[in-house]
Amino acid sequence: MKTAEATVRALLIADNPESFVTRRIPEVNLEFGGIPGDRHFGVTCPADSRQPMYPRGTEILNRRQITILSEEECHKIAQQLGIEVVLPEWLGANVLLRGFPELTRLTMGSRILFPNGAGLICMGENQPCTFPGEVVQKHYDHVPNLVNEFVRAAYKRRGIVCAVERAGKIQQGDKVRILINDFSNPMQ
Amino acid sequence: MKTAEATVRALLIADNPESFVTRRIPEVNLEFGGIPGDRHFGVTCPADSRQPMYPRGTEILNRRQITILSEEECHKIAQQLGIEVVLPEWLGANVLLRGFPELTRLTMGSRILFPNGAGLICMGENQPCTFPGEVVQKHYDHVPNLVNEFVRAAYKRRGIVCAVERAGKIQQGDKVRILINDFSNPMQ
Repeated sequence: MKTAEATVRALLIADNPESFVTRRIPEVNLEFGGIPGDRHFGVTCPADSRQPMYPRGTEILNRRQITILSEEECHKIAQQLGIEVVLPEWLGANVLLRGFPELTRLTMGSRILFPNGAGLICMGENQPCTFPGEVVQKHYDHVPNLVNEFVRAAYKRRGIVCAVERAGKIQQGDKVRILINDFSNPMQ
Repeated sequence: MKTAEATVRALLIADNPESFVTRRIPEVNLEFGGIPGDRHFGVTCPADSRQPMYPRGTEILNRRQITILSEEECHKIAQQLGIEVVLPEWLGANVLLRGFPELTRLTMGSRILFPNGAGLICMGENQPCTFPGEVVQKHYDHVPNLVNEFVRAAYKRRGIVCAVERAGKIQQGDKVRILINDFSNPMQ
């Protein structure tokens, strides 16, 4: 099995009920369901426009508890948009990693293991929508058309969503081990 | 997105604490966590030998709530073993499908939707171990070496494991719709 390492550059929480934008915190006690107090916390969640196969609002399993971005992919989005920086806050990320540049390509079922014992399981790629583009636009109001350009620039760079597989404390600065799921000989 | 259809040929439960072998029941009220009363029921479960990255027995997310087999793959296993039949009971299956022959190749993140509204999400391929082979051997005690041959014959035919994404009643005879996850444009 292939493995990789990366560093937790930032931990963030969306605890403002009015916004998906996150803010930095030094550590998190991961529970089953995600980050307590975060807007995506919950073992289950209401189905929304991302799950059109279920009636909107019905209770479904929450596979989008934690959003993770790579610093390298954020940098590429900014480069393509011609702006200085795209912050993970603006994209609603909960974890920012450095050292595993192509995070968005991480296969479903891959694991991210933290030094303290906590574990996340990759539930797949996050697909870009326009809302983060609107936040980026607000920070660069002199650059035209960032809302739409964001979706293009963030394609296959929008990171992954994860569920908590094992609870535990995680901290900024943690070195994580990534176990890459190989579908030809999958982890169980 | 590609879709497919299949028929629920049998529903089964492992409610004998001494055994993983299942028995047929006409209907199941799926809850978050799986089939109430089944040995694999639970939103979480203890880590075992299949998750060596965690200390054995620690509480982890349960992605192996429901085991599904295809009748066609069971038939191929039996053919290769040179025996008349391999029953889903012996392999600990909870659901037996017909009409989607290569079930084991169903991608992670694919959905199986039931007429009553319940939904399962594919958490990946199940890998064969020797225990079901021992059960098969007991039913064909005149055929040599079935325990080991089973692992070979069941390779990539051992079905999938799922988690309940939406609760609800499911019944023998249900026609299910399968939404096949395409990693190049994944479902969310």
